[in-house]
Amino acid sequence: MPHKHLFRDDYSEGAHPRLLEALSKTNTQQEPGYGADSFTHEAEQLIIKKIKQPQARVHFVAGGTLANLTSLSAISKPYESVILTENGHPNVHEAGAVEATGHKLYVVAGVGGKLTPDAIQKVVAEHTDEHMVVPRTAYISQATEMGTVYSKKELQALSKVCRQHKLYLYVDGARIANAIMAEDADHDIDTIAELSDMFFIGGTKNGALFGEAIVIVNPNLQDKFRYHLKQRGALMAKTRAISVQFLEMFKDNLYFDNAKHANQMAQKLAKGIAECGYEFLTVSPTNQIFPILPDSIIEQLQKKYGFYVWVPNVSITGKTSTSAIRLVTSWATSQDAVNEFLSDLKSLGKT
Amino acid sequence: MPHKHLFRDDYSEGAHPRLLEALSKTNTQQEPGYGADSFTHEAEQLIIKKIKQPQARVHFVAGGTLANLTSLSAISKPYESVILTENGHPNVHEAGAVEATGHKLYVVAGVGGKLTPDAIQKVVAEHTDEHMVVPRTAYISQATEMGTVYSKKELQALSKVCRQHKLYLYVDGARIANAIMAEDADHDIDTIAELSDMFFIGGTKNGALFGEAIVIVNPNLQDKFRYHLKQRGALMAKTRAISVQFLEMFKDNLYFDNAKHANQMAQKLAKGIAECGYEFLTVSPTNQIFPILPDSIIEQLQKKYGFYVWVPNVSITGKTSTSAIRLVTSWATSQDAVNEFLSDLKSLGKT
Amino acid sequence: MPHKHLFRDDYSEGAHPRLLEALSKTNTQQEPGYGADSFTHEAEQLIIKKIKQPQARVHFVAGGTLANLTSLSAISKPYESVILTENGHPNVHEAGAVEATGHKLYVVAGVGGKLTPDAIQKVVAEHTDEHMVVPRTAYISQATEMGTVYSKKELQALSKVCRQHKLYLYVDGARIANAIMAEDADHDIDTIAELSDMFFIGGTKNGALFGEAIVIVNPNLQDKFRYHLKQRGALMAKTRAISVQFLEMFKDNLYFDNAKHANQMAQKLAKGIAECGYEFLTVSPTNQIFPILPDSIIEQLQKKYGFYVWVPNVSITGKTSTSAIRLVTSWATSQDAVNEFLSDLKSLGKT
Amino acid sequence: MPHKHLFRDDYSEGAHPRLLEALSKTNTQQEPGYGADSFTHEAEQLIIKKIKQPQARVHFVAGGTLANLTSLSAISKPYESVILTENGHPNVHEAGAVEATGHKLYVVAGVGGKLTPDAIQKVVAEHTDEHMVVPRTAYISQATEMGTVYSKKELQALSKVCRQHKLYLYVDGARIANAIMAEDADHDIDTIAELSDMFFIGGTKNGALFGEAIVIVNPNLQDKFRYHLKQRGALMAKTRAISVQFLEMFKDNLYFDNAKHANQMAQKLAKGIAECGYEFLTVSPTNQIFPILPDSIIEQLQKKYGFYVWVPNVSITGKTSTSAIRLVTSWATSQDAVNEFLSDLKSLGKT
Repeated sequence: MPHKHLFRDDYSEGAHPRLLEALSKTNTQQEPGYGADSFTHEAEQLIIKKIKQPQARVHFVAGGTLANLTSLSAISKPYESVILTENGHPNVHEAGAVEATGHKLYVVAGVGGKLTPDAIQKVVAEHTDEHMVVPRTAYISQATEMGTVYSKKELQALSKVCRQHKLYLYVDGARIANAIMAEDADHDIDTIAELSDMFFIGGTKNGALFGEAIVIVNPNLQDKFRYHLKQRGALMAKTRAISVQFLEMFKDNLYFDNAKHANQMAQKLAKGIAECGYEFLTVSPTNQIFPILPDSIIEQLQKKYGFYVWVPNVSITGKTSTSAIRLVTSWATSQDAVNEFLSDLKSLGKT
Repeated sequence: MPHKHLFRDDYSEGAHPRLLEALSKTNTQQEPGYGADSFTHEAEQLIIKKIKQPQARVHFVAGGTLANLTSLSAISKPYESVILTENGHPNVHEAGAVEATGHKLYVVAGVGGKLTPDAIQKVVAEHTDEHMVVPRTAYISQATEMGTVYSKKELQALSKVCRQHKLYLYVDGARIANAIMAEDADHDIDTIAELSDMFFIGGTKNGALFGEAIVIVNPNLQDKFRYHLKQRGALMAKTRAISVQFLEMFKDNLYFDNAKHANQMAQKLAKGIAECGYEFLTVSPTNQIFPILPDSIIEQLQKKYGFYVWVPNVSITGKTSTSAIRLVTSWATSQDAVNEFLSDLKSLGKT
Repeated sequence: MPHKHLFRDDYSEGAHPRLLEALSKTNTQQEPGYGADSFTHEAEQLIIKKIKQPQARVHFVAGGTLANLTSLSAISKPYESVILTENGHPNVHEAGAVEATGHKLYVVAGVGGKLTPDAIQKVVAEHTDEHMVVPRTAYISQATEMGTVYSKKELQALSKVCRQHKLYLYVDGARIANAIMAEDADHDIDTIAELSDMFFIGGTKNGALFGEAIVIVNPNLQDKFRYHLKQRGALMAKTRAISVQFLEMFKDNLYFDNAKHANQMAQKLAKGIAECGYEFLTVSPTNQIFPILPDSIIEQLQKKYGFYVWVPNVSITGKTSTSAIRLVTSWATSQDAVNEFLSDLKSLGKT
Repeated sequence: MPHKHLFRDDYSEGAHPRLLEALSKTNTQQEPGYGADSFTHEAEQLIIKKIKQPQARVHFVAGGTLANLTSLSAISKPYESVILTENGHPNVHEAGAVEATGHKLYVVAGVGGKLTPDAIQKVVAEHTDEHMVVPRTAYISQATEMGTVYSKKELQALSKVCRQHKLYLYVDGARIANAIMAEDADHDIDTIAELSDMFFIGGTKNGALFGEAIVIVNPNLQDKFRYHLKQRGALMAKTRAISVQFLEMFKDNLYFDNAKHANQMAQKLAKGIAECGYEFLTVSPTNQIFPILPDSIIEQLQKKYGFYVWVPNVSITGKTSTSAIRLVTSWATSQDAVNEFLSDLKSLGKT
C-alpha cells in the first residue's frame, strides 16, 4: 500500500510544470546535438550573468553523481586526491564513483557536516612526498547532506586556505538553491562562484525533470572538458533537454522560488515538530530536517508517510528508544501534506 | 544563418509529442527514486513481454555511451576485452570511454560495417596465454554505424560462435528499431534478445527526449548491475523521466512506428538520389544513408541543409572530386523536407 | 656528510650474502621465463609445505606496493571496497595505488594500529544498498606499521567475522617474519595462512635483494591471477631472480633467522632507551620501535644516525618539547651499532 | 625432459657475472631507500652523460611492462591515446596493461613492424573533436618486436612528424642495445635520446638480473614522475639493486658488448640457416630472427632446442607445410650452442 505523502526526498515528483511547457514549446525546433544548440548557449549565458563570472563555462549533464565523477576526475592528476567530510556524497552515496576513476578520497571529520579550514591544512601538512597522494581539491556540498549551510565567512575561509595551498574548491550544488534561499542565508550564488573553482547547480533536486549545470569558474580547468564529459558518457546528444529547463528556471526567479517553497515547507515541519518537544540531529535551515522521534511514533507515521530512518537508536533522553528520521520537502510539497503530518504527530504524541 | 532543414542526425528535435504528454500526465504522482517507481516497473514488464525473455532485467539510463561503458565494464573482468569492428561506436566515437574503465577494445575489420564470426574465431585463436587479454565480449551495433543491418542468419552465426567460445554477444541498439523496421528485415526484437546476452534499446535516436533501456538477457550478468550503474553515474534519481517514455513507446507500436517513418524518409531520399545517378558508400535500408556526390553540389546543398561530409575525397569515377555525405532522418522528418532536398539536388545536377 | 649508522628502515643494505651466493650458483642455468622455471616451482613447493596449505598457489613479485595493488584489485569486483585502519600501508604510503585500480579504501580507526572485528562489523552493517560500495576485503598488516603484532586470538576473531560476512582477509606480510619471531609470538606462519584468504611473505624488508611471495590460500581467488600480474606489470621475465632467493631463505630457517636478529637488535635498543627513562608511542615487540625523545637529543643523534622523526611534537610530560622517532633494525644491523647508539643516548641524557 | 639449449628468449639466464659481483661488492653499504641512494645517483649521471642530454632524468624500475604502463599513463591525459603498430608490445603482450590505466591504444599497420610518419599523420587528421580521443604519443620499439631496426633517417622522420603535431615520441628500448649494435646501425643511443621525449634502456633482456632505466628527456614530462612510479608499484625500496647493475654496465662498454655478442650469435645462426636455403619472416640484424622452416624439421629441432613457433602455417613455396619460428640469442649464448643447432639443421635438411 503506497504512502499518502512522501517526505523521502526532493525528487519524488516529475518537473515543475513550467519546465514541461518549455520542453513542449521548443520541441520541434531543429538544433545541432551535443550542446551546440541555441538553447544551451542561451542557458549558459543566463547562468554566467547570474553568477557574475564572464569567463566561466557551463556544461549540462544528466545527474549529480555523473557531475561529481566527471568533474573531480577531470581536474585531478592521477596521483591527486580529494578532501571531504565523512558525510560527503562521493564518500558514502556514490558507490565508489570517484575512486572508480582512479582517485583517492581523503576523509576528514566534519563539523555539523561541514569541512573546516583546519582539517584541510592538517591534510596538506601531512602529505609531504611521493609515497602519498597530493591533496588537490576540497569537496564541499552547499547545502550539506545534513541540511546545514556554510556561511559566507566559512566559505571565504575555505576558499582562502585552498588558494593558499593551491587546492581547488569544488562545490556540490545539488541543493545550492536551498542553501541560498535559507532564511538566514548571507550570500547569493555569485558568492559561491567567486569563492570556488568549480561547482554545479542542481536541477534534479530542485524541480527539474533531470539535469545539473556544471560551472567551471577557474579558466585553468576549462580546457578539453568536453572530452572528459564524452569519455564518462556525460555528453548528451539532446543536451537541449536539460538546457531548455535551466533556461526556463533562470530566465526569472523560478529556480530560487522552487527552493524557497521547499525550505518553507521543511521549516514549517521543523517548527511544528519542535513544538511537540522533539530534538533534531542538526540545525537545518534548508529542505532536509532530521528530527529525533520515539521509535513507536516513527512506526505509526510510516504507515501513512514515506521517509527514511536516518540514524537508528539515537538516544537523547535515554527514556525511550529514539531514532533520527529524515524529512525532505520539495518545490511540490503541499501545505496540506505538512499540516496533515504535524496534526498526526501531535495526536500520536498524546497517546 | 541556420539551415532550413537538418539531416545531420536523428536527435535534432525534442521528443515525440506523445512522450511529453505522458510526462505531463504522470508529473505530480509521487514515486520512490532511482528506478523503484511504478512506471519503471511497468516499463520493464512491457519490454520483457515484448522481447519474450521473462528472466530478463531492464535498466534505464540517460544515453548510449553511458549504456555501453557501464554494460561492457560490468560484464568484463579486468583482463577481458571486447571485440568490435573499426566502425564500432566505442572504438571511434566515445572518446575512449570503454578503455577509461580499464578494458581493451580489440578492433577487427568489418564487412560492410558488420562483425563476422570468422573474425571472432581468429581473435579467440590468437589469445592463448596471460601475456594477452582474454576476449570475452563481441560488440555489434544493430543497425550498424554504416546504416547496414545484420540478417537473422548473420546474428545466429555470431551468437553461435560466441556461445561456442564462451563469449558474450552485446548489441548496441541505439538504432535497433531502424534495423527491425527496415523494409527487408527478417527478424523482430525478440530474435535479438534471444541471440544476445545483453543489448540496449535506444530511445534518444528514436523519438525519446532522452534515454535508453539496457536489457540483460543472460541471468549470469544481472547480479549487482545497479551497483555498476550507480558507480558510473548512470542510476538516475528520476529514472521515471525515462521509463515513462518507454512505457508510452511500448504500450502500443509507437517505438517501432517512429523508426518506420524515419526509414521511409531515408529510403525516399535514397531512391531520389539514386535516380539522379549517384552511388552510395553502403547499401543501407535504415535511416542513415551515405550518398556520394560531387563536392561542388555538396557545397551548394550545405547552404540550405545541415548534414555531415562523412568520407571526403571518395572518388568513384575519377572524373570529378566527390565525397560521401551522411543523411540521417528521424521520426520528425517531414515529407516536405525530403521533397525539397530532392528537388534541389535535381536542379543542381542540371547545371 | 653521511650518517655512521642507519636505523631508517629495514632495506638500507643489499641482500643477505647467502642469497647473492644462491643467485651466483644458479646464474648460468637456462630456464623458461615468467615463472615457468624450476626454481620458482621449487620455491612455491617449499612455501606451500611450510604454510601447510597444499592447495595454495604462490606468485613472486618485485615489491610490496605492487603485491598489494595487484592482489586487492584482482580479488575485488569494481564496486567492492577494502576495509583497513588509518595506518594501513595502502591508505597512507602507496600514493593511492589501490584507488588507482578503481577501488575504494574504507578507513576505520585502529586500536594500536590494529583492525578490530567490531570495526569490520560496523562497516558491513552500514553498507546496505547500491548507493554504497560493497565491503569485500579486510586488509591487515602483520606486523603492523606501528610495530605491533596481532595475537592468534585476534587473528581468529578477524577471520571469523570475515568469513561470517563473506569478506576476504588479506594480510600484508611485508614484516610477517618479524611478527612470527617476536619474543612473545603465539603463532607461526601456518596460522596466518589458515586464517586468511591471501597474504604475502615479504622479502625486501627481511634480507632479500628484492621481492615478495604472494600466497593465495583461498582457491576461489586463484583463477587467472597471472593475467592480473601481467596487466599490472608484476609478472617478471626473470621471476627466478626472486624465487631463487626465497628458495634459499626457506630451505632452512634463514628467512626467520633474519627477522629474529632484527627483532633482537630493536628490542635491545628499546630496553636501553627505556632504561634511560624514555616512553614509547606503541609497545612493539618487532623491529620497529617508536621512542619519544626530547627534540634537543633527537637533534644531536641525527648528526650521527639516520632515522625518521615519526610524530613531531608528542608531549608526554609537558616539560620539554618531545617527538616520537622511528628506529628500524634489519638482518644486517650490528651489535656495535646498537651499543654505540645507546651509549651516545646515555651521554646525551646526562648533559 | 629439458632442452639442451634454449633460443626461446633473451632472459633464460641470470645476469652477467660482473653485475652479480657489483651487487656483492656494494652489498653491505648502508644507503637510503627508494632511489635516494648514491648508486642510483651515480648511475643516473653516467646514463645522462652517455646520452648527452644533461636535462634528462632517469628512473629505475623492475620490468618493461611496468616501465611502459607507468610512463605512458603518466604522460597521457585521461582522453589521450597512444599510437602504435599491431606488433607493438603494449598491444599484444602486456595483457591490456595500458588500457587498464584508462588509455586507448590506437593500432595502425606497421611496415616491417615499424611505425610510419604517414600512419601517424593519418591518425592525427582523423581525430578532430571530443567524440574521439586525442592522439598524444607515438610508441615505437627499437629494435622492434620483429627484430627490425629503425634507421636514423626513419627516427628523424618520426620525430619530426611528432613534434609537428605536438605528439610525444616514446621508445620502448627493451632491446635498444641490440638496435644500436646491429652491424649496419647508423646511430648511437644519444640519437634516440635526442629524437624522442621519453624512452627506456632495457636491462632484463640484455644481461641484467632485472631492471630497466626510464629516461625522461623532455623536461615537461619530468614533474612528479616519482608519484606515478609509486602509484603503479614501480618505486622500489632497494632501487640500488637495479642501479648498481646499470652503473656496472655503463661504466665501460659492457651494456653494448652484451648486445653485440647476442647479435653476432643470432646473425651467425641466420647466415647458417640461409645457407641451408631457408627464408625469413623479416630481415632482422638483431638478436631475434624468424626463419621459416618445414614443420617436420621444426618438430625434430624442438626435441633438443627450446624456441617458439611464431607464425604457424606460413607457406612460402607451397610445397610443404612451413612455419616461422623465433630464435633469440643473448649475452650468454655460446658459439657451441649456435654451431650445434646449425649442424643439426644441416643434417635434418639432408634427410
